[in-house]
Amino acid sequence: MEKGLLIVLSGPSGVGKGTVCAALRKRKPELIYSISATTRKPRQGEADGVNYFFKTKEEFQKMIQNNELLEWAEYVGNYYGTPIEFVKKTIDSGEDIILEIDVQGALKVKEKFPEAVYVFLVPPSIDELKNRIEGRGTETADNIKHRLSMAQEEIELLKHYDYAVVNDKIDNACSKIECIIVAEHCKRFRFIENKTKEGV
Amino acid sequence: MEKGLLIVLSGPSGVGKGTVCAALRKRKPELIYSISATTRKPRQGEADGVNYFFKTKEEFQKMIQNNELLEWAEYVGNYYGTPIEFVKKTIDSGEDIILEIDVQGALKVKEKFPEAVYVFLVPPSIDELKNRIEGRGTETADNIKHRLSMAQEEIELLKHYDYAVVNDKIDNACSKIECIIVAEHCKRFRFIENKTKEGV
Repeated sequence: MEKGLLIVLSGPSGVGKGTVCAALRKRKPELIYSISATTRKPRQGEADGVNYFFKTKEEFQKMIQNNELLEWAEYVGNYYGTPIEFVKKTIDSGEDIILEIDVQGALKVKEKFPEAVYVFLVPPSIDELKNRIEGRGTETADNIKHRLSMAQEEIELLKHYDYAVVNDKIDNACSKIECIIVAEHCKRFRFIENKTKEGV
Repeated sequence: MEKGLLIVLSGPSGVGKGTVCAALRKRKPELIYSISATTRKPRQGEADGVNYFFKTKEEFQKMIQNNELLEWAEYVGNYYGTPIEFVKKTIDSGEDIILEIDVQGALKVKEKFPEAVYVFLVPPSIDELKNRIEGRGTETADNIKHRLSMAQEEIELLKHYDYAVVNDKIDNACSKIECIIVAEHCKRFRFIENKTKEGV
């Protein structure tokens, strides 16, 4: 049977990863999304195994020790991470899974899971981003410099990715990501892998 | 400006390259198709630069000598080949161009144009192909053996391609090829190439 794909969707903060993911969920309800583990308390309406895998601090630390996370980080006193097991189970069942994650997290995932498909959401125009930062008029020259170098650093990280998808319009970005998934399934090496497994 | 892509669509004889190409033309009228040069005489209704570039034997031989063909072959006394110029012009203008060609021709093209996107149309099932060849009941054991080894050889050539598209249904195959084109335009290295050219 053909294995599923892990699609890592990332990009600089503010590029619209969450919005694009929400739109993808609507367009392709059959796509599975990676569920994070966290030590933060569930909010009203949140269910374990749906919104998050809710863990105690001790459980989470054990997951770290046992190498059960693709990546993890601490954020305002709570741990957040991506459990390997859910990703592997999904892929092994032949289904694709999407992981929406910041650029730092994506790089950590790549170390453990280089065979995933890495998609970088790009702001519509780097020039525009530059203009926006410079043109706000509310920031000091130092701040502008810092933000520009941050943006430059984030764009630099693009080199670790397989695909660059410009988020000019949400529907355009979704269509492109959907096509990337289809095309990746057609990659010759995957086809040959599957045929070899089937013994043909 | 972003360059166009050369998409080489190939596969074993009988897989349905022509049918898929004709369907693609209908679905995507904006796609440009490579026009072959030939020394065969125009048939009624055929126009130079539309169906073929019609050449004399001398002109064709000069094209061979001047390295103006991506590939060429002789077939029942006539030359057929793919002029480089038309392909390059199209790509440089930012448009994609599709070249439908047999597996032998595609390999020759790859030598001169490795940066093209190589798509291999695969019969719905290799098992089925096997059954079909064995099940015809009209062929000698030697013929069956020969056909099976031919099919095996053709499938072996798949390793030179970027993508394998199973031609189970024409519409499926077309959708996949369309997605491959979209995804290839999103390839990170192309994006960075273009940004570098734009000086961003």
